Amino acid sequence: MSSNDPISKDYYDYSAWYENLEPTKPPVEVILPCDPTADDRLYHICISAISIVVMLVLAAFTKRKRLCQGFLKGVPGLLSPVNFLDHTQHKGLAVAVFGVVFCKLCVIVLAPIPLPFVQNPESDYKAQHVTDTLAGAPLTEYWKILSLFYYPALYYPLLACGTLHSQVGYVLGSLLSWTHFGVLVWQKVDCPKTPQIYKYYSLLTSLPQIACLAFLSFQYPLLLFKGLKGTVKTNASEDLDSSYYRDYVKKILKKPSKPSTTSTAKPKLSERVYDAVKSYIYTPEEVFRFPLKLAISAVVSFIAVYQVALLLIVGLVPTLQIVRAGVTEEIAFLLAGFKIMLSEDRAEVVRIVVHYIWSTEVCYISATILSCLVTLLMLMRSLVLHRANLRGLYRGDIYNVYNRQRSVRPSRPALVCWMGFTSYQAALVCLGLVIQTLVFFICLMFAVFLVIIPILYGRNLIIFHIIGNMWPFWLTLFLAVLIQHITAKFAFIKKDAGTRDLDNRSALFLLTYFLFPVNVLVGVLLGVWRMVITALFNIIHLGRLDISLLNRGAEAFDPGYRCYAHYLKIEVSQSHPVMKAFCGMLLQTASQEGGAGQKMRDVEEGIQLVAQEKKQNKVSNTRRAQARWLLLFTLVNNPSLVGSRKHFQRQSSESFLNGTLNRATKESSRRDTSQKDEGKEAGKEADAPATN
Amino acid sequence: MSSNDPISKDYYDYSAWYENLEPTKPPVEVILPCDPTADDRLYHICISAISIVVMLVLAAFTKRKRLCQGFLKGVPGLLSPVNFLDHTQHKGLAVAVFGVVFCKLCVIVLAPIPLPFVQNPESDYKAQHVTDTLAGAPLTEYWKILSLFYYPALYYPLLACGTLHSQVGYVLGSLLSWTHFGVLVWQKVDCPKTPQIYKYYSLLTSLPQIACLAFLSFQYPLLLFKGLKGTVKTNASEDLDSSYYRDYVKKILKKPSKPSTTSTAKPKLSERVYDAVKSYIYTPEEVFRFPLKLAISAVVSFIAVYQVALLLIVGLVPTLQIVRAGVTEEIAFLLAGFKIMLSEDRAEVVRIVVHYIWSTEVCYISATILSCLVTLLMLMRSLVLHRANLRGLYRGDIYNVYNRQRSVRPSRPALVCWMGFTSYQAALVCLGLVIQTLVFFICLMFAVFLVIIPILYGRNLIIFHIIGNMWPFWLTLFLAVLIQHITAKFAFIKKDAGTRDLDNRSALFLLTYFLFPVNVLVGVLLGVWRMVITALFNIIHLGRLDISLLNRGAEAFDPGYRCYAHYLKIEVSQSHPVMKAFCGMLLQTASQEGGAGQKMRDVEEGIQLVAQEKKQNKVSNTRRAQARWLLLFTLVNNPSLVGSRKHFQRQSSESFLNGTLNRATKESSRRDTSQKDEGKEAGKEADAPATN
Repeated sequence: MSSNDPISKDYYDYSAWYENLEPTKPPVEVILPCDPTADDRLYHICISAISIVVMLVLAAFTKRKRLCQGFLKGVPGLLSPVNFLDHTQHKGLAVAVFGVVFCKLCVIVLAPIPLPFVQNPESDYKAQHVTDTLAGAPLTEYWKILSLFYYPALYYPLLACGTLHSQVGYVLGSLLSWTHFGVLVWQKVDCPKTPQIYKYYSLLTSLPQIACLAFLSFQYPLLLFKGLKGTVKTNASEDLDSSYYRDYVKKILKKPSKPSTTSTAKPKLSERVYDAVKSYIYTPEEVFRFPLKLAISAVVSFIAVYQVALLLIVGLVPTLQIVRAGVTEEIAFLLAGFKIMLSEDRAEVVRIVVHYIWSTEVCYISATILSCLVTLLMLMRSLVLHRANLRGLYRGDIYNVYNRQRSVRPSRPALVCWMGFTSYQAALVCLGLVIQTLVFFICLMFAVFLVIIPILYGRNLIIFHIIGNMWPFWLTLFLAVLIQHITAKFAFIKKDAGTRDLDNRSALFLLTYFLFPVNVLVGVLLGVWRMVITALFNIIHLGRLDISLLNRGAEAFDPGYRCYAHYLKIEVSQSHPVMKAFCGMLLQTASQEGGAGQKMRDVEEGIQLVAQEKKQNKVSNTRRAQARWLLLFTLVNNPSLVGSRKHFQRQSSESFLNGTLNRATKESSRRDTSQKDEGKEAGKEADAPATN
Repeated sequence: MSSNDPISKDYYDYSAWYENLEPTKPPVEVILPCDPTADDRLYHICISAISIVVMLVLAAFTKRKRLCQGFLKGVPGLLSPVNFLDHTQHKGLAVAVFGVVFCKLCVIVLAPIPLPFVQNPESDYKAQHVTDTLAGAPLTEYWKILSLFYYPALYYPLLACGTLHSQVGYVLGSLLSWTHFGVLVWQKVDCPKTPQIYKYYSLLTSLPQIACLAFLSFQYPLLLFKGLKGTVKTNASEDLDSSYYRDYVKKILKKPSKPSTTSTAKPKLSERVYDAVKSYIYTPEEVFRFPLKLAISAVVSFIAVYQVALLLIVGLVPTLQIVRAGVTEEIAFLLAGFKIMLSEDRAEVVRIVVHYIWSTEVCYISATILSCLVTLLMLMRSLVLHRANLRGLYRGDIYNVYNRQRSVRPSRPALVCWMGFTSYQAALVCLGLVIQTLVFFICLMFAVFLVIIPILYGRNLIIFHIIGNMWPFWLTLFLAVLIQHITAKFAFIKKDAGTRDLDNRSALFLLTYFLFPVNVLVGVLLGVWRMVITALFNIIHLGRLDISLLNRGAEAFDPGYRCYAHYLKIEVSQSHPVMKAFCGMLLQTASQEGGAGQKMRDVEEGIQLVAQEKKQNKVSNTRRAQARWLLLFTLVNNPSLVGSRKHFQRQSSESFLNGTLNRATKESSRRDTSQKDEGKEAGKEADAPATN
C-alpha cells in the first residue's frame, strides 16, 4: 500500500508512471577521459630510449670487465638475466619483474588501445567499427599482439641490471626502477578516475604493479648499499658456492630420526583433523628452498587472483548498485507485463525488488570472496605438494609421485611444458577463479532465493512444497537405507574371536531381493550426489596443476597435470641439490688447483667439468678416488641422478641401478670391517658402472 | 517466392494466413484408452492368489521332504531362493526374474496408476488435481510406494520354484511363468496402442519383460525335462560340489607360463592399439566365472539402457515429427515477431524451418544412439575390469586394486553397499545415459548449426567470422607454441653418448621470459581444453562404478566407487574360489565319514565345519595334518583369505602374513630335501599361526 492517498489512486496508474519517470532517474556520474600530465606516449618513447641506452651501457661495461675472456663473453650473461634452475639466488628481482609483466598483460587484454604509441583518437572508433561489422581483422589486434612482446622487452633492463652483480648495474637499476615507479604513481595520482569499466578500476588494477615497482626501487638501492659496505659477496648469487646444497646433502646423509612410536596405532580423529589442516598450510623449512620458477608461479598466481577478483567485482557490482538505486514504481508495470505480481502495492513491489537486487549483490560478492579464499587455499596446498613431490623425486620415489615408472630426463615435451609452466599456472588460476565464482554464485542464489528468503519471509515456498509433497517417498528411501544399515550391523554380521563373518545369509539374500526396486531409487540419489561431488571437486581444483582431475588410470590425459609432470622432470633432472653440491665441490677442487682468474662459476661449466674430468691429468689419484666414492654414495642415495650420467645407457637403467644398489649394500657392510681400504675399493666400484 | 501469383500477393498477407490456418493442420490421431480382455485388476487378483497357493504347496512339499531335518528346515530354503555368493549355479532364473522386476519398476515410476487394484477412474483425475494444487501428498504416491514392494513379492514364486531342485518346483514354475507370459502377451496383442506418452510406448517398454518371461517359460520346462531324463544331478547347483572351484585352484597352483620374450621391449603402436581395443571387449574365460550379483547387474544395466533410450526417443521424436508436419506459413509471421527473417519468401521460410527441425531430430536420435553405444562399451569394459579386480584381490593384490592398503573383511558399510550394488549400478547407468544424451545432443547441435549447415548452405557464418577475425591471434599462439617445440628439439636439448642434457641455457631462459605473456594466453586455451576433457571423461564414465571419477588421492569421496570398493570386499571375502574349493573338500571328507543323510551342503555349514573342526575327534591325525598343509599352502597363495580365519587378530595382520610367507618360503625349500616329513612339518607350521 502506498502511504499517501491509497484509496483515490488507482494502482497501475499509467499517468503517474509517466510523470514520475524522469525525476526518479538517478544522476549518472560522467567521467571524462583524462590525460595525465606525464603523457603515456611521450613517456614510453623516452623510457624505451633510456632502456636501450641502459642495455648498451651494461653491455659495454660487461665487455670491458670481461675483456680477457673474449669479446662476446659478457653479452650472453646480459642476455640471460634469470637462471630459472637456481635455488639459491635472490628471487625478489625476478619475481617482481614477472609480476609487473603479468599486470601489464592484464591491462593489454582489456584495453582498447594496448600500445601507447597509437594514441590517435580515430583508432578507438575504428576498432569499434571493425568489431561491429566483423569484416577482416581489426587493427588493434595487431597492436595487442605487438604489445605482448613489447612489455617484456620494456621491463627487461630491470632484470638485466641485477644479473651482473656490479655497482654500475645496481645504480642503473635503481634509476630505471625509480623512473618507472615515479611515472606510474604520478599518472595514477593525476588521473585516478577513468571511464573504463569502473571509475577506479584503472587505479586498482595497477596496485600490484606499483607494489612490484616499489619493491624494485627499494631493492636496487639496498643491493648497491650492501655492495658499497662490502657485506655482500660479489658472488653472492653464485649458485654453486652457496652452502644451501651442502646443508641439504648433510641433512639427507644424516641418519633418519626414529619414526614415532604411535605410528602403528591408528591416529585419533583430532590428530587426523590436525594433520589435514596442516597439509593445507605452507610452512617454510630451512633445508628446502623452492625453485625460482615455482616462486614466480606462486607470486604471479597470487596477482592473478587479485586481478580476476577485482575485474569480477568492478564488472558487476557498480552496475547492480546503479540498477538498485534506479528502481522506480515502473518496475511493477514491467513485472505485471510478465504476469509477475509481487504485491498489490507499488511501493511494496519496489521495496521487494530492491531487496532482491541487494540479495543478489550480496550473493555475488560472497561468491567472489569465497572463490578467492578457496583459490588461495588451493595455491597454498599446491606449494606443500610441490615440496613433497620435489623431495620425493630427489629421493627417487618416482612411483609415488607419478603412480607409474617414468624416466626423469629432459625431453622435448618436458622442456616445452617447463617453459610454459608459470604461464599455464597463472592462466588456470584465472579460469578456475571465474568458474568457481560463477558456480558458487548460482549455488548461493539457489540457497538464498529458494531456502533463506522463503524461510524468513514465507514467500516462494516452492521447494518446501515439493519436498513436503514427496515426504512419503523420502521417508521410504530413508527407512530402506536405515533398515539395511541396522540389519547389517546387528543381524548379518557376526563377530567371533576377532573375525567378522556373515550371518543369517538367507535373510540377507531375501532382503537384498526385496529392496532391489527401492535401492534403484536410492541409487538415483547416489548418482546425483556423485555428479555434484565430482563437479564441485573438479571446479575447486581446476586451478591446480599438481593434481590430475581424471581417474588414476587416465591421469596423462589431463593436459594440466601432464604439464606439471613434465615440468617436474626438468626441474629434478637439472637442479637436483645433490648434483649441485657435487658440482660445487668439483669446482672448488678445480679452483684450488687452477689459477684464481680461471675460476669457473656456472652450473653448466661445472657439468662440463665432469665430462672433461678425465682429460685433466693434474688431479691426483687419491682425490679422484675420493670423488668417485662420493659419486657412488650420492647415486645410491639419489637414484634419479643416474639418468643424467654421461655413459648412462637407457636400456640398462634398471639393471645398472639394481647393480649399484646391491654393490653399495655389500660395500657398506664391508666398509665397517675394512675402513682403511675405503678409497681404493670405492674407486674400483665406481669404475664399474662407468664402463657400462 | 511463393509460386502462384507472386506479384499481386503481398507477403505477410494476414488474410491468407487466417484462411490457410485450418486446412493445413495435420489430423491428430486420437488414441482411446484401451481395456484389454484380460483385465489387469482381475488378473492381478488371480495371479496373487495363485502365487500364494504355489508358495504354500512348495512349503508343504519341502517340509515333507525334509521332515527328518526338523520342522522349519525347509522354509528358510524357500525363503532364500538366490544365493548371491554363488559362482556356479545356473544364473538364468535369477537374472530373468530381476529383469522382470526392473521392467516393472520402470513402468511404476511413470504410470499414473501404479497398482492395478486401484483402477477406479477417479484416481486419475484426483492425482492430477492433487499434483496441481501441491497440497499434501497425493494418494498415488502411497500406491507407488506400495507397488515398490508388491512386484518383487509377485514375482518371488518364480524364483522360489527353481530353488528346490525338485520336479514339483519345476512343474509349478513352468505353470506360473506360462501364465505370466501368456497374460502379458495377450494384453499387449489386445491393446498395442495406449494414450500414454507415445502410442506404442507401452508395448515397446514391455518387450524386455516379455523376453525375460519367455526365457523363464522355456527354462522351467527344460529343467523339468532334464530332471526327468536324469541328465542333471539333483544337486546340480550345489555350489561346493562343482568342479569349477577345483579347476580354479588347479589353475592357480600350476606354474605360471613364461612371460613373452617381447615384454621388455617397448610395444609397437599397432600392438598398443590392439591391446586397448581388446581391453574394451569382454571375452569369457573358462577358468573364471562371474559372481551372480555381477551377472544380474550386467543384465539389469542392459535393460536399463534399453528402457532409458526408449523413453528418450519416444518422449521427443514423435512430438518433433508432429511439429515438423504442422509447420505452416504462419511460422514466418511468428519469426518476424521475434525479428528473425530467414527468407523473404514464406514458402522458403517453411522449408528452412522444416529442414532445421529435421536436423534437430537427426541430432537427437544420433545423440541417443551414440550415448547408448558408449554406455554399452563402458558396461563391457566394466566387466573386463571386474574380472581383473576380482582376480587381483583373490591373489592378494590389494594395493593394485585399491591403490592403498585395506582389510578385505565384511563390515557394516561394506554389507550395505553389497546389498545395493546391483540397484546402484542400474540407477547410475540410467542417469549417465540421460546426461550423456543431453550433452551429446548439445554438442551435435552446435556442430550442425554452427559448422555443418553454414558450410553447406553458406548461412549463419558467425563462428567462421569470429575465427576469421581473430586469425592473427590464433596464428601468434600457434607460432609461439611451434617455436617452443622446434627450439626445444633442435637448440635446447643436447644428446651426448646416450644422455640427454640441456644446452644453450641462456637462450632457453631468455625465450622463457619473452614468451611468458603469450604462454599465459596459451594457458587459457589449455585450461578450456582441460575443462572439456575432464567434463567429457566424467560424463562418459558416470555410469561406471568400477572407477573413481575423482583424483587418485580423493577416490574414497566418490560415492559410486566407494560402493564398488566395499562390494568387492564382501564378494572376495565371502566367495573366494579357493576358500570354496577348500570347504568343498572338507565337506567331502565329512560326508565320507558321516552318514549319507547327514551330508552337509551349504557354504555356511562348510564354514561352520571349519570352526567345529577341533571338536570332531574322529578325524585322524594324518588327515588333520594333510588338511592343515592344504590350509597353509592356500593361505600363502591367497593372502586375502587370512582375514577370514577364526583366530585372526587384526593388529597382527601384517606380521602374521609376513611370517607365514617367510616360513612358507623356507618350507618349500626344505620340502625338496625331505619330502617324507612333509605332513608333520606342515602340521607344526600351520599350528603356529593358529595360536597367534
